[in-house]
Amino acid sequence: MSNLIQTGDNADITKERRNATFDIHDMSLFLYGSEEILKRRKEMLAFVKSKPEFNDPIPTEFMNREQRVDNGARKIVAMTDNTDEIDAGDFFGEGMYFQGLIMGRDLHPMSLHYVMFLPTIQGQSDDEQLDEWLPLTISRSFVGTYAQTELGHGTNLSKLETTATYDPKTGEFVLHSPSITAAKWWPGGLGKSANVAIVVANLYTQGECKGPHPFFVQLRDYDTHEPLKGITVGDIGPKLGFNTSDNGFLLFNNFRIPRRNMLMKYAKVLPDGTYIKPQHAKLAFGTMVFVTEQLGEGNTELLPEIHALTSGLKSVVSYEVALGIEQCRMACGGHGYSQASAFPEIYAYAVAGCTYEGENIVMLLQVARFLMKAAEEVVNGKAKLADICAYLAKRGANKSRLRTADEYGGDVIIEDLEHVARNQVFRAYDSLKRKEKEMSSEEAWNKTAIELCKASRWHVRLYLAKNFLHKISTAKGAIREPLENLARLYAFDIITSSHGEFLRGGFMSEAQLDELKGGFYTLLERLRRNAVAIVDSWDFDDKELHSVLGKRDGNVYSSLLDWAQQSQLNRTQVLPTFNKYLGPMMKEGRSKL
Amino acid sequence: MSNLIQTGDNADITKERRNATFDIHDMSLFLYGSEEILKRRKEMLAFVKSKPEFNDPIPTEFMNREQRVDNGARKIVAMTDNTDEIDAGDFFGEGMYFQGLIMGRDLHPMSLHYVMFLPTIQGQSDDEQLDEWLPLTISRSFVGTYAQTELGHGTNLSKLETTATYDPKTGEFVLHSPSITAAKWWPGGLGKSANVAIVVANLYTQGECKGPHPFFVQLRDYDTHEPLKGITVGDIGPKLGFNTSDNGFLLFNNFRIPRRNMLMKYAKVLPDGTYIKPQHAKLAFGTMVFVTEQLGEGNTELLPEIHALTSGLKSVVSYEVALGIEQCRMACGGHGYSQASAFPEIYAYAVAGCTYEGENIVMLLQVARFLMKAAEEVVNGKAKLADICAYLAKRGANKSRLRTADEYGGDVIIEDLEHVARNQVFRAYDSLKRKEKEMSSEEAWNKTAIELCKASRWHVRLYLAKNFLHKISTAKGAIREPLENLARLYAFDIITSSHGEFLRGGFMSEAQLDELKGGFYTLLERLRRNAVAIVDSWDFDDKELHSVLGKRDGNVYSSLLDWAQQSQLNRTQVLPTFNKYLGPMMKEGRSKL
Repeated sequence: MSNLIQTGDNADITKERRNATFDIHDMSLFLYGSEEILKRRKEMLAFVKSKPEFNDPIPTEFMNREQRVDNGARKIVAMTDNTDEIDAGDFFGEGMYFQGLIMGRDLHPMSLHYVMFLPTIQGQSDDEQLDEWLPLTISRSFVGTYAQTELGHGTNLSKLETTATYDPKTGEFVLHSPSITAAKWWPGGLGKSANVAIVVANLYTQGECKGPHPFFVQLRDYDTHEPLKGITVGDIGPKLGFNTSDNGFLLFNNFRIPRRNMLMKYAKVLPDGTYIKPQHAKLAFGTMVFVTEQLGEGNTELLPEIHALTSGLKSVVSYEVALGIEQCRMACGGHGYSQASAFPEIYAYAVAGCTYEGENIVMLLQVARFLMKAAEEVVNGKAKLADICAYLAKRGANKSRLRTADEYGGDVIIEDLEHVARNQVFRAYDSLKRKEKEMSSEEAWNKTAIELCKASRWHVRLYLAKNFLHKISTAKGAIREPLENLARLYAFDIITSSHGEFLRGGFMSEAQLDELKGGFYTLLERLRRNAVAIVDSWDFDDKELHSVLGKRDGNVYSSLLDWAQQSQLNRTQVLPTFNKYLGPMMKEGRSKL
Repeated sequence: MSNLIQTGDNADITKERRNATFDIHDMSLFLYGSEEILKRRKEMLAFVKSKPEFNDPIPTEFMNREQRVDNGARKIVAMTDNTDEIDAGDFFGEGMYFQGLIMGRDLHPMSLHYVMFLPTIQGQSDDEQLDEWLPLTISRSFVGTYAQTELGHGTNLSKLETTATYDPKTGEFVLHSPSITAAKWWPGGLGKSANVAIVVANLYTQGECKGPHPFFVQLRDYDTHEPLKGITVGDIGPKLGFNTSDNGFLLFNNFRIPRRNMLMKYAKVLPDGTYIKPQHAKLAFGTMVFVTEQLGEGNTELLPEIHALTSGLKSVVSYEVALGIEQCRMACGGHGYSQASAFPEIYAYAVAGCTYEGENIVMLLQVARFLMKAAEEVVNGKAKLADICAYLAKRGANKSRLRTADEYGGDVIIEDLEHVARNQVFRAYDSLKRKEKEMSSEEAWNKTAIELCKASRWHVRLYLAKNFLHKISTAKGAIREPLENLARLYAFDIITSSHGEFLRGGFMSEAQLDELKGGFYTLLERLRRNAVAIVDSWDFDDKELHSVLGKRDGNVYSSLLDWAQQSQLNRTQVLPTFNKYLGPMMKEGRSKL
């Protein structure tokens, strides 16, 4: 059933693969969507393996930071040299796979160049600016980054301190960091690699502040790479993960740039200092949400729905993924704690998603704002709800239709999750309204925050479970059963681990819950024989997974020993440090006895 | 109210300190137990600060592994040189503080020498052996470690593969690693620092296996430090944390040691190979649970109670602490992700506790074995339960006595937690018994595992909450109120986050739960003004906390910038790598346009 079995493999893993009830190719096809995509993955993998310059001289976990940054620069130049040949320039689509194969679970000196700088140039420049900057960006004539977050101000954009003051006498903007907290902080590649940046600063003209706007700023001399006068720039130091990236800080001391370095697709400043405002206030920050295509058309009607959903998904998924990774790591015991397993790196990589691009709790509270507005519309009978929120206006049953765990699936599960999500949204809403009569709205909001975050989480969980169940209902053949078991396990887990919500109001009885708990073991048992095959179906090559514990052949113990040989400390039997400290100490000890 | 306020401090933190309702010295006294202990902490801190040799030349987070190991060896020799002067040799008591101040949140080359090797020598050697080895251990004439865990076998001691076969012809044991999975793996200091070890191996004599026993084994030449013939030893590579420690691997190839290198306080092998078994089977493994004093007296009656409680505390506390650290880290946003915050190191240090010295789920299932036995005794009316388990035989009320959140405290909280813990234990017990009628005991056990782990967690949570509430009831004066709020917040959190357990059987009503949820916000509000003072009361000096974000003076932003200057990447404005890769790439890009 599995094309991954080879002679010499660990016998246990081969047995697991033989035991599977489905063909992993069928499952891969279902997961990735088409033969074409699977073929492209194979092509890209073969291409990467064919180029020795994409390899690391030693695994990166044995490198120090300087070596990592050097190796990352080497590989990203090699990678972008070769991107056209394999046609993998789509950095948000299949190109992600290509990049991951080469760069691993890390950023690199040009991550922000492609992920933030380029889209901002494309989305926020006027035609003339585009003609000037786009060819330079694409030809890699400079390395760009995106400098928005400041030392004292992250998610809260309205607090940014960096100023760009227009001087009509010279036709220039003066960039300045009025305090230490104004220092740009975190942008990837800013520390040592980038020589240009999109800098987000508060625009001042004619004595008025017009809020944050993006500016194209050269930071370093194009030839010598030395920072320009008026620019202080450097690396922010080591982090939990992403240590190949030289995340940077940046301070301006009255640094002047030409007027036309302001990105002027939407807002503009005329030579005399007159400010022309954009058509729609939110358009100026499209880069952070990646719906630039629709924004380009001026379609802003769906923004609140999309914003609430993506914010919520970002928050719930990043957190649950991080928790799940740690659970898997701990299930591997001590070996999971070793970097040989790759879990420490995978966790550091994934858990960052709870923080970057909008801190998770802030995101959940944004979703809650949207849900409270929707709830109010339902209460007032004026709701025009899109699909994802339609459940808020439904009248559901008072009792779950759950009879036996085995029959419990699809629509009935969704009804039950809808019931709990709806109840939580309205419970938070009622509590908020009650409090608003006694205190300020802000206070009331803060004192409902736990219930609001819960409402957001249920809204997102419902969406996830609904889509999961819907998607697997389209599966055909032998893959259908394990997928159904997986989706139901997911739902059973949500319900049994939050069962208080389902007991409330007698919606479920204790007997129903106990039935689900029993069903949970049954699902685990059914899934057990397919566990390895399900993982295999994700088509992770050893090159991509980069984990001694996760190797295809299952020969983990000999591989652990081989891996350890590469430790920096094993280059000599006796470390130079021995003769400096421990050696003399022991000699002295023996001499005294 | 606070002696931590100084001029030049961040104004916000000073305001917080001024707002506190209690004197932090009183709280420190309550937390640490006596003026004498606080005085000793101050003495040790002043002593450490007075010795420049205890300082790191640069913060360790900027060092690579070789530098860390070198620096760790330097400091541990300096530390043990000075231990007598400050009388801090008690490595399990106040000496832990001394060690933490110098070594930070990491192990060092002699951690296992003091924490495992020395106690094993003391606890398992006979008098003659003690005379030989103890002076050598204390005088630091060798560096020892404790080699038990193997590459393929951790928590499950019965699976160890390393053999020690007695050869009566030469009066020697032959140590051998029959496979790769038999390699000793993980012992701290084993990789490069230790030259002797206690090795746990299966003893074979007269053709019979007598199970695992401890042996004293020299690994390296005392002068040259080269590994002895028949010994393969090295570092196991980088880990999530503890990278100053050279955790090691060790393989034996028919390596011979004298008969008397077996530690013979309990079991013995006579010259002719006759095996003399120990008085009590469990005594031979006392080093792993640290109740050696009682074991020395042959008192084994309390072992099951102590074992269940310590196993459970180890599991629940290590996990909740790790989760809490991550929550705090994420609450700091991006700054928490930087190593400047110290959170990545604190997390790596703490979460290891979920795995080492007995994997957490294995531990919880051990607690469950004990609880199921106790439940059976209660059912059979034969229970002789110690204090910690007495609740299992109690008949509690059917309804919680909770009226208002404000009144809800002490005994009523404990009654409610007892109710839920007892219910969970008996629910798991009933389910287990039911299943045992249909399948093998092992299968039944596995199919009740989730409920069993839950029972163990409730047993431990009850113990924690009970002790927390009891302890704070002894507090006097202004510290009493914030402590009560803290303890009740802890209890409210347990209850509201697992409220399904309290709704079951109508023990609590939804109205009661909502009352507690409201009370949760009230407690948060009351604690808010004392939040900084409570943290201050732990008496963490900047030297101990080693966190830019957690600095006493609150001047975090300028400190972050100062800290970043020490990044390895900031030693030059332009990295050498620039001229190798990114520089030529950009030059070529410009030349094409």
